[in-house]
Amino acid sequence: MGKSVAQKLLEEHLVEGDLQSDGEIALHIDQALLQDATGTLIMLTLEALGLDRAATDCAVQYVDHNLLQEDSRNPEDHLFLQSAARRFGLWFSPPGNGVSHPLHMAQFGVPGSSLIGSDSHTPAAGALGMLAFGAGGVNVALAIAGEPYRIAMPDIWGVHLTGNLPNGVSAKDIILEMLRRHGVSGGRGRIIEYTGSGLDCLSAMDRHVIANMGTELGATTSVFPSDEAVRDFMGNHGREDDWRELVADKNAGYDLDEHIDLATLEPLIAKPSSPDNVVPVREIQSEPIYQAYIGSSANPGYRDFAVAADIVTGHHIPSGVSFDINPTSRVLLGELARDGLLEDFLSAGARLHQAGCNGCIGMGQAPAKGRNSLRTVPRNFPGRSGTTEDSVFLCSPETAAASALTGKITDPCTLDPKMFKTPRRQDGLLAEPGMFAAPLSSDEAATVELVKGDNIGSLPELLPLPDEMELPILVAVQNDISTDEIMPAGAEVLPFRSNIDKIARFVFRDVDPRYPEKADKAIEGDGHAVVGGENYGQGSSREHAALAPRSLGLRVVAAKSFARIHRRNLVNYGVLPLILPKTVEPLFAGEVLCFKNLKRLVAMSTTIGAKTSRGAEIALTLEASPREREILLEGGVVNWYRKQDAGEVQLRVDERAF
Amino acid sequence: MGKSVAQKLLEEHLVEGDLQSDGEIALHIDQALLQDATGTLIMLTLEALGLDRAATDCAVQYVDHNLLQEDSRNPEDHLFLQSAARRFGLWFSPPGNGVSHPLHMAQFGVPGSSLIGSDSHTPAAGALGMLAFGAGGVNVALAIAGEPYRIAMPDIWGVHLTGNLPNGVSAKDIILEMLRRHGVSGGRGRIIEYTGSGLDCLSAMDRHVIANMGTELGATTSVFPSDEAVRDFMGNHGREDDWRELVADKNAGYDLDEHIDLATLEPLIAKPSSPDNVVPVREIQSEPIYQAYIGSSANPGYRDFAVAADIVTGHHIPSGVSFDINPTSRVLLGELARDGLLEDFLSAGARLHQAGCNGCIGMGQAPAKGRNSLRTVPRNFPGRSGTTEDSVFLCSPETAAASALTGKITDPCTLDPKMFKTPRRQDGLLAEPGMFAAPLSSDEAATVELVKGDNIGSLPELLPLPDEMELPILVAVQNDISTDEIMPAGAEVLPFRSNIDKIARFVFRDVDPRYPEKADKAIEGDGHAVVGGENYGQGSSREHAALAPRSLGLRVVAAKSFARIHRRNLVNYGVLPLILPKTVEPLFAGEVLCFKNLKRLVAMSTTIGAKTSRGAEIALTLEASPREREILLEGGVVNWYRKQDAGEVQLRVDERAF
Repeated sequence: MGKSVAQKLLEEHLVEGDLQSDGEIALHIDQALLQDATGTLIMLTLEALGLDRAATDCAVQYVDHNLLQEDSRNPEDHLFLQSAARRFGLWFSPPGNGVSHPLHMAQFGVPGSSLIGSDSHTPAAGALGMLAFGAGGVNVALAIAGEPYRIAMPDIWGVHLTGNLPNGVSAKDIILEMLRRHGVSGGRGRIIEYTGSGLDCLSAMDRHVIANMGTELGATTSVFPSDEAVRDFMGNHGREDDWRELVADKNAGYDLDEHIDLATLEPLIAKPSSPDNVVPVREIQSEPIYQAYIGSSANPGYRDFAVAADIVTGHHIPSGVSFDINPTSRVLLGELARDGLLEDFLSAGARLHQAGCNGCIGMGQAPAKGRNSLRTVPRNFPGRSGTTEDSVFLCSPETAAASALTGKITDPCTLDPKMFKTPRRQDGLLAEPGMFAAPLSSDEAATVELVKGDNIGSLPELLPLPDEMELPILVAVQNDISTDEIMPAGAEVLPFRSNIDKIARFVFRDVDPRYPEKADKAIEGDGHAVVGGENYGQGSSREHAALAPRSLGLRVVAAKSFARIHRRNLVNYGVLPLILPKTVEPLFAGEVLCFKNLKRLVAMSTTIGAKTSRGAEIALTLEASPREREILLEGGVVNWYRKQDAGEVQLRVDERAF
Repeated sequence: MGKSVAQKLLEEHLVEGDLQSDGEIALHIDQALLQDATGTLIMLTLEALGLDRAATDCAVQYVDHNLLQEDSRNPEDHLFLQSAARRFGLWFSPPGNGVSHPLHMAQFGVPGSSLIGSDSHTPAAGALGMLAFGAGGVNVALAIAGEPYRIAMPDIWGVHLTGNLPNGVSAKDIILEMLRRHGVSGGRGRIIEYTGSGLDCLSAMDRHVIANMGTELGATTSVFPSDEAVRDFMGNHGREDDWRELVADKNAGYDLDEHIDLATLEPLIAKPSSPDNVVPVREIQSEPIYQAYIGSSANPGYRDFAVAADIVTGHHIPSGVSFDINPTSRVLLGELARDGLLEDFLSAGARLHQAGCNGCIGMGQAPAKGRNSLRTVPRNFPGRSGTTEDSVFLCSPETAAASALTGKITDPCTLDPKMFKTPRRQDGLLAEPGMFAAPLSSDEAATVELVKGDNIGSLPELLPLPDEMELPILVAVQNDISTDEIMPAGAEVLPFRSNIDKIARFVFRDVDPRYPEKADKAIEGDGHAVVGGENYGQGSSREHAALAPRSLGLRVVAAKSFARIHRRNLVNYGVLPLILPKTVEPLFAGEVLCFKNLKRLVAMSTTIGAKTSRGAEIALTLEASPREREILLEGGVVNWYRKQDAGEVQLRVDERAF
């Protein structure tokens, strides 16, 4: 049986593990993508790792998220990121350049390469035949430092496209169809590979739309072949030399197969408040709209704007409708201006915003409560727009523009077909080399000082695991505690994302506001423990929910079970995630857990014994890979990396011990 | 002696008083300008007044300040303003249209008309030969309701311009020269009238720059003649029919005279952190810059952008410099795109922002601490940019662009003179009629419901003055208490500007956090009093510092003296501003002040007696005009207007009583 594009990509990057089993595989990472909201913590991690220079072929720090500079904090983050990019040998894309994913694709994307990004839509680069993952900041930092990226071996899901898209239907409708069929977890544990003759009508940027929103299906990533459409796109950007063909073998087999006849698709729309709440547009036609919004990484191509301009040119948007244009990049905006499309938008009454993520991530453009906002963005989770009780719909640029034109939700197929003037497969220019600051030479980089504004701290030094610990339980929580409850978000807290000492004062704020104060006391001893129920740490993947309490002395979380990502984050910051026995007397805040012989047990044993201050003995379980055990012994992944880098990891945990 | 433009304008609008004396004059108001930050309270006042329809020739609600929609509050303010404009017969300019002052000038400005605006830069319309005032919200609301506007008769200051501006020097340098000569209070109590042959090189938009920043001189307003330059500007906007000539008589005399030879001017710059901290640019050349910023109501014309584009075209802004372009209006942005200037900016690496006030009022674009930001905006007070410890300089577009080009503060006269391609007196298009929503017909308007989001309240009903009151003193403060201390601003408080009940909970927050709670108790009786020292209520003119405590039951402020604007605001909301005797035993929080025969005393007497709970008798002084006494008796200007409108003011206070 021949190989799929995904198989070829995995094979080319495999450094550990077996593509035929279901186990963990480790992949070599060629490129890294950082955005500013997550980038500051990554740069602090690189500083803590003691990194001299990025080991990737290419790593790029973009500034596209926190562009609303209402005080000095965001601009000082930007200066810090710029200085860190100079220090560690990264490219830097300043505020105003535009959205990371399409910029990266245009300027740095290389078919056949692997990419890790601290943004969940990083898989968009799969449009070029890249193997691209969204990951937590620590994983991105480690990849920049040269560590491979580890994932569970995914299934490969072949989605066979045939036929041609009708007028008024576009790439967004294809991914909405996938969401309609499979829901927001339909892609979990899978790489989605698009293939078939239907690809012929999709430009590289159309494919970007689909790969980008594979994230909404929960997919590990999405991939497309690198074919003539990709060559065209790269040629447009003067980068044909970086192109290589990468297509599936004729007889390639897939773990699962799916078929979409593009000719049968119609305009689709995801109703509030989930990307899989998809219906045909015609079913909800005529509902009044408040806002129509073109742009974001989910519809970033030239054609996405051009078709919208086609529809509104010569008309005036009805009074009371906000028609928001969010240019993908400075260069794309220049193209729209040059081709007269910007004037068409403005004459129709559009509201032009700066190039960047903007309202897609709740940075401006929030709608009024309960008013219908049609957006070409990838997500419509409740409140993501910035407005509680929002009413956000996801749709194609055709549907958004048609609805702006009429002031009501409108199926673009009901418009005069002559309105659709822009041909398929028209990709414009998104980037030009001069807009990025290139990495400094090693010599120059070595002299760069990090520019840290008042609000930027350093990663706390974490001590290795001691052999004995007496840990008071400071908090005992119920089942399903979320990372939101551990580490609140919101306007009061988020500005301290680069200031661990400050943000730590908010940990468990709504559970026990005196927790930080109690932790301060306990840290004079060995630190403290927290007790949880089932599914501890569910929800958002934020790493601060592990790092911030760890900085206050958290050493053990004893819970009935852990949410997967939070468990990994706890390990990365050297907190033991111990599983409580099925039947155990409840543990309460105020009790003390005593551990002995910890080093040997963590290295060798799945059972970790503890004595309580009441005298009870509890057999806790540590489920962890050998590498994770090494990390726990060193007190976290930063310490572990430093030792490994220096050839000093003292205790190599042998896989065969389990 | 002939008449000046200012004299003619005053004469044409005088309804009470005498232009030859120094007393108060009342002027008929033809037009009103509202922006969104102050507009909500005005609309709530119109609602409370029971207004049916605006009595002005033209009143326009602009949305240009609070464009950063991070949650539902700003967009819901916009919807409220839109509905109120429909209800009360105003024009509406939605978000995205652009900055109020230049838009108003382009679309609604009429030479010879009077204008009141709830924005301090309203005098910009003086560029067209209008008589334009910035005023508090209550005065704007009353003007919309048909009341005249009252000011102390100002001196008229003739500023005689001769000669031609050198290359690289422009209108901004003229007003900076005025600020250099006279400082931020040099224009107080004066109307500045620009005249002379030097006007020939200044377009209407150049004059706008100067009239706009007359506010920084503290001037009552600034006026220019309505001549051919104004006719050109209005003709460009298809409004030549609204033009009329209005020029000073040949032998016009002025109360004061000033002369500026334009040919001798050089590029000037206001250093941090005051608009009058002016030096020649050459004196501080070569300081590194972080940001250069083109736009705002202080440099809103086509030429302001075109000269900046001339300078940067074909070059790339140095890495690390943020070159921010803030288009004045949607239409101007379209012109820049059409003429290729937008592409020139973008190719140079500019960062384009949405049309509106933006960073000029601290809504985004904040610089990093201590980094030099060169802006064409009107003000650089400390922290106004949003950043504490900011370093903001005010300069012309030529100086900002020249500095962006080099990355250092740069005198544009040191550039190649061939760079200045755009001719003088080139005014582009700023507005087109289709971008404004016209007032509804009276019949339609009557059926409109105000759209009030969760965060929009109503003006509290205020009771008329009772004849007897026993008022506990809740707070006793020292000299020079500012309106900031009475009614704090800041991100926590400001979102409640349209919600008096909510914002009142922050009154005296930093003086006595229990004040609102104590006031709740006292309101079960007759309300309460506050005691102050000298200059009570200095600082910002915010009306909430009177209205919010009044809504909590404040009836009397007894102070040694009052700041002028806050005293007026207290009267407008029915709070007695009583002056303490020069020598008096200190009054403390907790004491009670007892008043009797108040109605007769407030109507007739400058002395208002009070007894303290200690038994002392105090003779307080009420300095107030007959009209103010009527307002105080009715419990505030809203009640007074309602009664007057219904012909029901019961107690006409006779001027002859004093």
